[in-house]
This record gives sequence, structure tokens and C-alpha cells, in this order.
Amino acid sequence: MISKKITSWSTNVRVSLPAVCFVWQIAMIVLFGVFIRYNEEADTHWQEFRRENNISSDIENDFYFRYPSFQDVHVMIFVGFGFLMTFLKRYSFGAVGFNFLVAAFGIQWALLMQGWFHTLDPATGKILIGVENLINADFCVAGCLIAYGALLGKVSPVQLLVLTLFGVTLFAVEEYIILDLLHARDAGGSMVIHAFGGYYGLAISWVLYRPNLNLSKRLNGSVYHSDVFAMIGTLFLWMFWPSFNSAITDHGDGQHRAAINTYLALASSVLTAVGISSVTQKKGKLDMVHIQNATLAGGVAMGTAAEFMITPYGSLIVGFCCGMISTFGYVFVTPLLEKYLKLQDTCGVHNLHAVPGMLGGFIGAIVAASATEEVYSREGLINTFDFEGDFADRTVGTQGGFQAAACCVAIAFGIVGGGCVGLVLKIPIWGDPADDNCYDDEAYWEVPEDDESIPPILEYNNHMIHKLPDL
Amino acid sequence: MISKKITSWSTNVRVSLPAVCFVWQIAMIVLFGVFIRYNEEADTHWQEFRRENNISSDIENDFYFRYPSFQDVHVMIFVGFGFLMTFLKRYSFGAVGFNFLVAAFGIQWALLMQGWFHTLDPATGKILIGVENLINADFCVAGCLIAYGALLGKVSPVQLLVLTLFGVTLFAVEEYIILDLLHARDAGGSMVIHAFGGYYGLAISWVLYRPNLNLSKRLNGSVYHSDVFAMIGTLFLWMFWPSFNSAITDHGDGQHRAAINTYLALASSVLTAVGISSVTQKKGKLDMVHIQNATLAGGVAMGTAAEFMITPYGSLIVGFCCGMISTFGYVFVTPLLEKYLKLQDTCGVHNLHAVPGMLGGFIGAIVAASATEEVYSREGLINTFDFEGDFADRTVGTQGGFQAAACCVAIAFGIVGGGCVGLVLKIPIWGDPADDNCYDDEAYWEVPEDDESIPPILEYNNHMIHKLPDL
Amino acid sequence: MISKKITSWSTNVRVSLPAVCFVWQIAMIVLFGVFIRYNEEADTHWQEFRRENNISSDIENDFYFRYPSFQDVHVMIFVGFGFLMTFLKRYSFGAVGFNFLVAAFGIQWALLMQGWFHTLDPATGKILIGVENLINADFCVAGCLIAYGALLGKVSPVQLLVLTLFGVTLFAVEEYIILDLLHARDAGGSMVIHAFGGYYGLAISWVLYRPNLNLSKRLNGSVYHSDVFAMIGTLFLWMFWPSFNSAITDHGDGQHRAAINTYLALASSVLTAVGISSVTQKKGKLDMVHIQNATLAGGVAMGTAAEFMITPYGSLIVGFCCGMISTFGYVFVTPLLEKYLKLQDTCGVHNLHAVPGMLGGFIGAIVAASATEEVYSREGLINTFDFEGDFADRTVGTQGGFQAAACCVAIAFGIVGGGCVGLVLKIPIWGDPADDNCYDDEAYWEVPEDDESIPPILEYNNHMIHKLPDL
Repeated sequence: MISKKITSWSTNVRVSLPAVCFVWQIAMIVLFGVFIRYNEEADTHWQEFRRENNISSDIENDFYFRYPSFQDVHVMIFVGFGFLMTFLKRYSFGAVGFNFLVAAFGIQWALLMQGWFHTLDPATGKILIGVENLINADFCVAGCLIAYGALLGKVSPVQLLVLTLFGVTLFAVEEYIILDLLHARDAGGSMVIHAFGGYYGLAISWVLYRPNLNLSKRLNGSVYHSDVFAMIGTLFLWMFWPSFNSAITDHGDGQHRAAINTYLALASSVLTAVGISSVTQKKGKLDMVHIQNATLAGGVAMGTAAEFMITPYGSLIVGFCCGMISTFGYVFVTPLLEKYLKLQDTCGVHNLHAVPGMLGGFIGAIVAASATEEVYSREGLINTFDFEGDFADRTVGTQGGFQAAACCVAIAFGIVGGGCVGLVLKIPIWGDPADDNCYDDEAYWEVPEDDESIPPILEYNNHMIHKLPDL
Repeated sequence: MISKKITSWSTNVRVSLPAVCFVWQIAMIVLFGVFIRYNEEADTHWQEFRRENNISSDIENDFYFRYPSFQDVHVMIFVGFGFLMTFLKRYSFGAVGFNFLVAAFGIQWALLMQGWFHTLDPATGKILIGVENLINADFCVAGCLIAYGALLGKVSPVQLLVLTLFGVTLFAVEEYIILDLLHARDAGGSMVIHAFGGYYGLAISWVLYRPNLNLSKRLNGSVYHSDVFAMIGTLFLWMFWPSFNSAITDHGDGQHRAAINTYLALASSVLTAVGISSVTQKKGKLDMVHIQNATLAGGVAMGTAAEFMITPYGSLIVGFCCGMISTFGYVFVTPLLEKYLKLQDTCGVHNLHAVPGMLGGFIGAIVAASATEEVYSREGLINTFDFEGDFADRTVGTQGGFQAAACCVAIAFGIVGGGCVGLVLKIPIWGDPADDNCYDDEAYWEVPEDDESIPPILEYNNHMIHKLPDL
Repeated sequence: MISKKITSWSTNVRVSLPAVCFVWQIAMIVLFGVFIRYNEEADTHWQEFRRENNISSDIENDFYFRYPSFQDVHVMIFVGFGFLMTFLKRYSFGAVGFNFLVAAFGIQWALLMQGWFHTLDPATGKILIGVENLINADFCVAGCLIAYGALLGKVSPVQLLVLTLFGVTLFAVEEYIILDLLHARDAGGSMVIHAFGGYYGLAISWVLYRPNLNLSKRLNGSVYHSDVFAMIGTLFLWMFWPSFNSAITDHGDGQHRAAINTYLALASSVLTAVGISSVTQKKGKLDMVHIQNATLAGGVAMGTAAEFMITPYGSLIVGFCCGMISTFGYVFVTPLLEKYLKLQDTCGVHNLHAVPGMLGGFIGAIVAASATEEVYSREGLINTFDFEGDFADRTVGTQGGFQAAACCVAIAFGIVGGGCVGLVLKIPIWGDPADDNCYDDEAYWEVPEDDESIPPILEYNNHMIHKLPDL
């Protein structure tokens, strides 16, 4: 049904893939053994902790504030990102399967990396984890899955695991600089997740440029049902994005406001994505690529500002602009990037993550800089921007400046880190497919014969062969 | 693969669709700017509000009572309704895509309309929104999506947006009359959502009757995989219906009881839907249409009574009857409606929403009228039926009467409103498809060529051509 | 497209299926009427109950502790198990539809059976239900759905309902012995759900051995899109398993810790499943069967120990081993079981549920036996193992012994119960398919003609016929 010309030596990962899986998983076990323990809310000493801290009820365990959001984020990572990439006609196994593999490894490594940078207890040398760490690990992995979007169909699972190992490491460092050193706020990760992840993937894809990729052109497209599968991914991302942006914001109004803002921005970007999609096509027909992707741009762009007092109409404006910009990107920018910058971006992460993420970072900077005590109240300002400790004297203007600087840091980490990792992935030992063999699950999967469609043809064949002599 | 006879002039929405999307979205931004603000639980003044109202913990923010249910409702609206309608063999893009578009616009307009009628602060002229408003907006949109079910495949996206604009408006007025003026209870919306939405769609469909619709008959059916996609919609609706009916009920026992009752009614309607489906078919085979739809009737019918003390076995009885009635509707009533009433109802919303919704309204009236202080306790009666303020002296018998009246109001709004909106949609400017072009995504979507199945045929072709001379 | 040789007399369930559905559903209504009422947290007397028990806020209603987890479990039962079994090329309707039917009946019967054994109030003779009962009913049904996995494609819906009737009954007795008499802990049901359900299904399958099943071999496999559908099931099971294992554990740290442990074990089993899948295939290609199933083994195996202080790295080790063992099972053990033990196990529940469930039981025993006051604190030990009342003096060593005994009880109930139920199902009155008619939805479903793929062939045909004379 599909070309069988698979250069089998090149994509055989029978040694490298199991080796990486086992060695790295054993390393995780050892490192977890040394470093990771339950935090006081997940430990059997919780009842003592409650008494000592005058917590009146079990319901005030952070688990009940964040677990529903955590599960929504979890769905976004595994079903959302996984199914969003199933749109290719013959790469659905790779989309959903490698997404699964990469995320399952990445969350473990992220718990360690983020733990070392953010929550290592200097007294005991342990990282104490709870539900918030699980959410952050999912977030961290999201950056790598975004990068996968640019490379979809062109890399081996071993390359993806390497990409994740380095991606999570870069993420943790970048996040440490942005959140701890610059003290920027980025609850939904416009900067640390989307801008970083998008540029990271683009830089890798640029280094791995394949001049003869058009040999696989026949498989670089969708079929009817694969587009419907992709809509599962789109919708779960779209629906749960309010949970994504509110998952780790402040208890109470912080989570509440972040969810509302994201809900509104997303709704708005659907309408402008549809509008631009229709107006840029002959006969006004909609393009599934835009519906599957650009409708999400509002969620990406609200990642930083969702917890601020951006106001409901402010959220609508953000969604309005980013839905438009993202769709324009798919229509005009992606072809230009490929032609002039040699940038092959399978899922268009440039338009969905890199640019809206960058814009989200700067929107956050502007909203932060224009915060006033009148709108936030003094206490609200302190809570929202965490003006405490070393940062008690910071003004909103300064905060805005640091937010903008943070966005530049995220982009720089993405581009420079991606460039370096791309060079590593270029070494010809990772089992990546040949140029005429991309976007094809045959390379790494036992693909079932689709005998559903074959029998009638053969049947007809026999029938005809019998009939021919009559001529 | 599918007839390409598309009368392109008629379905070209390249001007109208973008125009509507942009103009309406800009209108939303302006109206949100004038009217919509965060409520005190989503605002940075929450900590002050907590102290003033002696709220002991952030966990008592309404967000934590309702957000998990909100997300479930959100999934029902976008994945549930969207995928339920993907069953047509060549209208899955339209089903899930237009559902997405309509809902994204509708929730914004609903926040405004419901705000003006229910939560406008007369002092400031502002609508203060929180998570409960988001749920109500989703509910409001559900009415329009139900109406879409009757029209699936026969209308343009522009018509759907117009349907939604008027539908949300009618909904808000009807809801105001039912909940505020009549002081009826309808937490899960048997009346305000399902009966209204069902009759609204049926009335529009009746006005838009297409005498030559059988020209599109070849596409008015499912294929194997499209039926499996539709089961995604069915199951997410079925599973999350307990959240739907309990999302805005009273904190504590109200939400708890509504979830239990709905869970039971749904379970019961699965068995009777399966039973009737089997007994009405030759050889006892099950029909996917019934499994996809009639299994949900129990949830629809519990929309009003779920928060009452209907008892667990009462819930089972409701599900039992409505699963039967709904399946009978699909088998016997829909064909008759089409034949004698000229009512073309693609998804059978008559059987799933209109009738079970109406029944649910009257069931609610009966259960309310038979409430006793012995069963509810005095306090429970007041809490459940909100016998406070102007309504402190209302008896349960009176309440039952008002509930029944409310149901009639919902139906009347649906039929009359739908008739008028149908006339508007009949104006030949909306780009709807010709009679021989319905149920076809080609009209409004760039549909990918399904080359998956084409290559082997061509291959065989070449092979054969080469072979033939040998004869 | 698919063989139409359906021995129609044998699979006609037009009498038996509706009869069972209606009679049993009516029986449920009667029994619910006699026995089932709302518990005090779902009843309108809740406000009085709150005052009497000094509960400070509605948020401390058990609903808010457990409802989000309940909904996740609900998704696992209906979408998770249902879609996991859609992998067969022509049995997706049966997979998702019969799963739906069986679960909808089973949860009602489970509420009664578990109620009689666990929560019957001796004073009033009533079973008082709340959200925890709904979760337990879902759990109970999971055992039967696991058994269905072994029988997929080989049994009629009536047989499945009989299997569920007896399965739920056996489950309730077994659970009573394990949790109440032996006082073992099994929050996520490694023993009571997975080991029992797995061996129950295997024993039934063994009794129902079909020597000529290879006549249906052509349908015992997947096609491309059916494998993608199955991934929906896999992922929702995988993502929500932390909710499954934590749904009924202790408030506070119990739920928190169980979620973390399960999350980690699952992540770990993905890597080892992928590793073994690759290394055991020629050319290192991955097999979707392994990815769909063995990745879940970590969740199964953590069912007992998730609430204990197994430590994060302990969880990783459990996932590591079980991911490996499960994949090895699919590669080597299932073929041997079929060849030598005459055990036909469609979904390989032996490898995913029976063995990892059994291992999970023994892992729980070991972890319990090695618990120390130093790690748990005295209070934590009492809370975690419920060392209260009659069991106040039990030591952790004794507890470990009882845990191990409980695991044997679960397996014994599964094997013996399954053997007996298998004999009942062997009576030739249930409408099961003939050996050449298994794995085929045509037997019990109105299957749509897939005209999508037919037209081009016929079209080509005509074209060619016209062309041939030219030769």
C-alpha cells in the first residue's frame, strides 16, 4: 500500500533503543533512590504536620487544590500532544507512541532536574515531591514534545530520547534563571515552555535539514480519518488549557482568574483562526491544519499573563490577535521558512508555540509593568508578583523589564541549546530514517496489513482474470 | 471518491464567514470591555474578601467546588457533542469543526446575555464572572449545539453562527423567565437546555425543509470507523453527565445527590436502549444509532430532578423509561416525522433531547410536588427549592405547578423562536449547500485526498496493463 | 468485504438479550427500592449532619475529596477498557458497545452486592450510598471487564451479562473476605480487581476453548486505524491510573502518596515495555500490542502498595520489572499458553492483569511486612494499615502474611469461580458465534457498508471494461 523501500540498516534500533531505555531507566532508579522522597503532604507524617501547622482539615492538603488540574495537564501531555500529531496519514503510531515514550522518560528526569534546581533541601540533600512537582514535570516535558512537533516523522525514537535528555536539562536551567534569578512570573509557561520548546525544536530541525525530503512528500499529508484523530488532540488541549495555565498559580483567586482568562483567550482565537483560514483559501474553504493548531494560540499566549489582572476583554484581545497571527503563520510564513531558511517544521510549531509563546512573554511583561495598586490592592500585588524577601522592593516597572528579559533568555536557550543538540543528533548513529523514508511508521513499527481494503481488489482481480479470456 | 458536483457558488463563504467571525469577535471584545469584570473570588481582592466574610481557607473559593465539574462539562460540549456528530461518513470535519466554532462564539455571547439577565450589578453596571458563569455559558451553548444536531450536514457555518446568536439570546430570556420569574429549579437543564434546544432545532429544520434531500442520501449514513469516532462522543457525554447535572447545584449534598441520581439513571437507560434496539431489529442485531444516542436519555431526563430527593430507585425508573422511549423514537417516530411532518432531523434530537427533556421537566414537577418535610427536613426543603425571599411561603404543590409551567415555557420558546430563526436562515444569502450536496465536507473544507486506498488500485492497473498484451 | 457466512440461528439474540436486559433491570429497580438510599452526605439532612459532627464547611463533604478521582475512574471503565479492546479490525463495535452494556449493568448490581457485604446498616436494613460506593461499583465492574478481555470476540452479549452477574457476585464475596475478614489493604485492587478478574477471565476462556478458532484467524488482528483507536483506551487508562489507585485511599496523605507512586510506576513501565518490545522483534521494530498493554503493567502492580511508603524509587522498580515481565508475557507466554494449555486469551489479560496483579499482591505483602514505625510514625502506621478495633494489636509482619493470603484468595476465587461460570456459559443457549464467525461485528451489530472504499474500484472497473476492447 505504501512504498516498502526501507533502507533497513539505517532505521534498525534493536540495540540502541533497548539499551537507552534500560540504562536510563536504571539510572533514574538509582538517582531517585539517592535524592527523591515524599514531601510532608504526601508522607504518613502528614497528620503531625497538620497539627503543627494548624491546618484544620485534610482538604487543605495541596493535593485537593491541584490534583484535578494535574490530571487535565496529564491528559494534555499524553492525549493532547500525542493525538495532535496523528494527522499524518502513516505516522500515527509514531506520533502517539513516541510522544508516550518521550514523556514517560521526561517526567522522571524532570523531577530530578527541577528538584535539584528548585526544591533540593540543603540540609538533607533530598528532593521532596508532591503533586505540584508532578505538574511541573509534565510542564517540563511539554517543552520537549513541542520540539518533537518540528521533527515529526524525521527522527528516530533514540534521537527523541536524546532530545528529551538535553531538553529537560536545558529547561531546568532556563527555568531556574527565569523564575528564581530574574524572579519573573510564568505560571503557564509562555516563555519557559512554549517559546523555549518551539525555538529548541526549530533550531534542531534547522541543523538536521534534509535537502531531499521531498522524496517523502507522498506521506507528508493527512487522510480523512487521521485528521479526525488529530482533532481529539486539539480539543483536549483546547479544553484543558485553562487547567494548564492555572495548575500552579496561587491558591484561591490565582487559579480562578488564570482559568477564566485562558478560557476567554482560547474562545477568541477560534473565531479569528476560522476567519483567516477561510479568507486565505480559494472558495473560502477551511483548512484542518489551521483548525487543529491556530485555535490553540490563545492558550499559548496567555501562559504568562493568565494569573495577572489582564481583564476579561484583555484576554479576548490576546486570543484575537494570536489566532490571526498563528493562522497567517501557517499560510504564509511556514512555506517561506522552508524555502529561504531551510527550516522544515512538520507541525508548524513556529506558528503555534514559538511565536505565540514569545508574544505571550512580552504581553506578560506589558501587563506586569502596567499593574497598579488601585487594581490589584497592595496585598494582591504582593501575592500576584511575589514581591517578598529579596524582591520586596521591586516595582511593577522593574518587574516588567525582568519579564521581558526572561522572554529573551527563553528564546536564547531554545536557539542555542537546540543548535548544539542538533549537532549531537546529526551524528549518524541514531538510526534516523533516510530522506525517502520519512513520515512512515514502517520504519519503527510492526504495521498491520490493511487487509480490509485489499480483499475486494484481489477478488476483483481474480474475477477479471477469469473474465479476460472471454475477450 | 465522492461526487465532486459541488455547486461552488452556493457554498462559498469566503466573505461572509470571515466577516461574521471578525465583526462579532470585535463586538464581543467591546462589550466585554464595557460590562465584564472578575467576581470577588477571581479578583486579587479575594484575600480581603475572605477576611471580611470569615472564610477560613482558600479551598472554600467556589473554584474548588465547581472547577472539576466545569472541566467535565467543557469536555461534553466540545468533545461530547462534537464527536457524537462525527458518525456521518463524510461530515466529520463539519461535525467537530463547526461544533467547535459555534461553541467558542456562543460561550462569549452567553456570558454577556446571561450576565445581563442574571448577574448584572445594578450599582456598577458590571457583570462579575467566576467559574459558575463559565459553566452556565457552556450550558447555554449546549442548547444551540443540540439544535445543530437536527441540522447537521444541511447548513453553512454562517447559518450556524446566526442560529447561535439568536439561540443564546432566546436561551437567556427563557432561562430568566423560568429560573427567576417562575422560580423553577432546573439545575441540569432538562427544560431550559434540552427541551428548548431540541424544539429550537426541530422548528428550524422544519422551516428549512428540503424536499430533494434524498439526492444526498448516499452520504447520509455512517461507515465503520465514523461510528467508532461517534462512540467517543457518546461515552464522554455519558460519563460526564453526572457532572453536568451537578455542576451548579448546591454545595455539599446538592452536588453529591445530583451526581448519584444521574449516574443511576444513565446506567438504567443503557440496558433498555440495548433491549429495545435488539428486539426491534431483524435477527436481534444492535443498531449503533441507538447505542450512540438513546443510552444518554437518562441523563437528559434527570436534568431537573437530579438535585431532588427522587431516590436511587426513582432515578433507575426514569432511566428505564427514557431509554425505552428514546429508542422507540429512533425506530418508529423519526421516520414518521420525516414522512408526515416534513421534519428532517439528522441526529434524531427529537428522541434524545426534545422528548426526554420535556419528560424530564414534568418528572421534575411531579417530584417537586410530592416533596415532604419528612423526607427533606424543613431546612433541606428550603435549601433544595430555594424557598427564600419572595418565595418563602411557596408550597411544594405550587412549586410543582410552576415547574410544569416552566417546561411549557421552554418548549414554546423553542418552537416559536426556532420558527422565526428558521425564516431568517431561509434567506438565500448564507451559503448553505444545495440538496445534492448535503452531508459533505467538500463544501466547506479542504478535504485531503485519501491516497491510502488509491495507490494499490493504480498499481494494479499498471501491472494489468502490462500483462494484458500477453493474452 | 468480510465473510458473510454467518450462521444466523446461532447468534440471534433477539429474544434472549432484550429479555435479560429488561428482567434484570426491573430486578435492579425493585432491589434498589427495597435497599438503597442516599447516605448522610448526599441527603438533604446534610446540613444537620454537619452541625452535629462539627464539620466546618461544605467542602469537607466526601464528594469533594473523591469526585474528581471518581470521574477519572469512570473514564477508565468506559473509555479506557472500551477503547483498549477496539484494536481488532472488525470488532470495535463489540469492544466498546458490549463494554458499555456490561459496565452499565454491573455498576448497579455491584452497588447492591457490595452494599450487602460492606455497608448494610443492620438497624434499618438499608444500604446508604455516596460517591465512594460509586467508585467501588466501578472497581467491581473492572474485574468483569478484564475477564471480557480474555473472551473478546468469542462470546455473545448475553454471555457477557451472565459473566457479569456472577463476576460481580464473586467479587463482592472475595472482597469481603480479603478486606473485612483478612483485613488486608488493597486500595487499587491489584488482588481483588486485577488478579481476580484476570484469572476469572482466563478460567472461563479455558472452559470455552474453541479448537477451530483458527477459522476466524483472518479477523484476529488489527488494522492501522483500529490500533490508533486502541491507543485512546491505553492512554486514558495510563493517565488516570493514579486516580484509580488513590480514589478510595485515606484523605490527605493517603490519596496524595498513592497518586505519586502510581504515576512513577507507570512511567517506568513504559520504558521497559518499549525496550523489550524492540529487542524481541526482528529489526527492532515496536509492536503496538506491547505499547497498548504492557505500558500499563506498572499501574496494575501498584494497586496494593500505592498507599504504602514504598518510596518513589520503589515505585520505579515495580514499574521497571512489571513492564518487562508483561512484555515478555505477550512475546513468549501467550503463544505457549494457547499451544499447551488450550488457553485463548484475545487481549492477553494474563500478561496485563493476572500476573502483574498477582505480583502486585505479593509486592504489597512485602512492603507491608517491612513497614516500620520509624518510617511511618506510630500514627501513620495505624492510619495506613487501619490497625484499629479488632486489629489494633496486629503487627506489620502479621499484616504482610495476611496480605499474601489475600492474594491467594483472589486467585483462587478467580480460577474456581471462572471454571464454574465457564461451565454455565458452555450451555448452548446463549447465542455465541460459531468458530468461523468470531471477532466479527456482523454477528451482533448492524454494520454499515463501507462504500467509501468501494466506488473507486467499481469506477475503475467500468473504466477498464470500456478500455479493454481497444486492445
